[in-house]
Amino acid sequence: MQMAPIGVFDSGLGGLTAMRWLVRLMPGEDFIYFGDTARLPYGAKTKETILKYARQDIRFLLSYKVKMVVAACGTVSSVGGNGLGAEFGIPYTGVVDPSVKAALQATKNGKIGVIGTLATIKSGSYEAELKKLRADAEVISRPCPLFVPITESGYCSADHPITKAVVAEYIHPLRQTGIDTLILGCTHYALLAEAISRVLPGVELIDSGHATALAVQQQLAKSGLLNDKKTGGMLSFYVSDRPDEFERFGTMAMEGFDVKCTAEVSVDTL
Amino acid sequence: MQMAPIGVFDSGLGGLTAMRWLVRLMPGEDFIYFGDTARLPYGAKTKETILKYARQDIRFLLSYKVKMVVAACGTVSSVGGNGLGAEFGIPYTGVVDPSVKAALQATKNGKIGVIGTLATIKSGSYEAELKKLRADAEVISRPCPLFVPITESGYCSADHPITKAVVAEYIHPLRQTGIDTLILGCTHYALLAEAISRVLPGVELIDSGHATALAVQQQLAKSGLLNDKKTGGMLSFYVSDRPDEFERFGTMAMEGFDVKCTAEVSVDTL
Repeated sequence: MQMAPIGVFDSGLGGLTAMRWLVRLMPGEDFIYFGDTARLPYGAKTKETILKYARQDIRFLLSYKVKMVVAACGTVSSVGGNGLGAEFGIPYTGVVDPSVKAALQATKNGKIGVIGTLATIKSGSYEAELKKLRADAEVISRPCPLFVPITESGYCSADHPITKAVVAEYIHPLRQTGIDTLILGCTHYALLAEAISRVLPGVELIDSGHATALAVQQQLAKSGLLNDKKTGGMLSFYVSDRPDEFERFGTMAMEGFDVKCTAEVSVDTL
Repeated sequence: MQMAPIGVFDSGLGGLTAMRWLVRLMPGEDFIYFGDTARLPYGAKTKETILKYARQDIRFLLSYKVKMVVAACGTVSSVGGNGLGAEFGIPYTGVVDPSVKAALQATKNGKIGVIGTLATIKSGSYEAELKKLRADAEVISRPCPLFVPITESGYCSADHPITKAVVAEYIHPLRQTGIDTLILGCTHYALLAEAISRVLPGVELIDSGHATALAVQQQLAKSGLLNDKKTGGMLSFYVSDRPDEFERFGTMAMEGFDVKCTAEVSVDTL
């Protein structure tokens, strides 16, 4: 099982911000990535729809005999919790728990902001987990529904007028709240970290993909499943629509790791 | 058959910009509207996916014994052409042909711009139809992939910084082209007409929903199917996800006609 690949999924590009850390931390591991680009964005859908899609994504990864599944998607992690892993009886993590732990380590004043998709914020997942671990934490949550569309369209530069206008709309109101830490509760949002930082100078941003990659490494090590080769891991990418765009923006999101799609997967077969 | 309802569909809110004209022109007709909000946006999907969804939407409307189907969606109209209507053997129109005719009536210099989703522009539908009817027409096409997400998020005001930034990005480059007419080739875009006009003063905008509503009225009259009651038409709205948001933004898109969802329809049943 140590040699088996790790499965990672998201609705689109966002999960690649976790992948870039997973690959850096565990360069000898093989990874199977599935981006459900045909049904993106997940964050504006209902709970039932999101869970149905997440189960199909997990089954797809399991068909590759993965040793662990990572829901590199804030929406699925929020709506499905850890129950999805238990349902399939596999080692599993979402991004909520690791991000919450990182935020609680980072905060000094206990005031923590959370941004995510509509479904994520509506679920209250981050807030519940933060308060479970620190009852007196003050949590300010805010949905940012256009962050996924603008990053999927490539508008990530902190200098671009579109990025600036959308980031200002959602992030500026957080300036008056006194938060010293902000959880980027959707993996897409790491692509906007610089633009967000400019509006919130001095606030520590928690990259949910980074926190999750660290948690995956720990979890695999603890259960003796870590493949500790230092190089040579294979990356396979599958998407359900528009592989060309995925490769173009994906290589940017992966900060230089080459993204080549192995195959396009019809959602009818999921 | 004169008393049967008219079926209208789109991926979400956009088709309501056609509905507002359909209802104004034919206030005695009953309408069944289906907005496929669970699978929105259509415009960034592949041809096969779009056609599959469109066929399911049409079948849903046919279950209400509609006398005509209107694809109030630039993407479906572009990718499916008139073949979709023929396939089901029903009176049918998309938005491409009516918009093209309106643009050719409006233009003085024969230079016509077309904006639409990625799938619409890639299909070349508007350009082909324009050149079929006027061989020397000069056509400048441009995809505007963020227009659907921003209108679905309610950012339609010409004064809002997000609307301004996104409209500037896509529309400003058209200023140098010399077009005197611009087809809003996606029904969502009519919600941005004022913002677009500010960037392109003096250019005539063709509202594809308006042009299509006129064409529907003519087609029904010609075939003796027009219900010429002057009032009392019933409007029924069905969506596949998030009826609350649809009602909230829908009433705005319909410019005051009250949008109340009759039911939410699971895409699994389509």
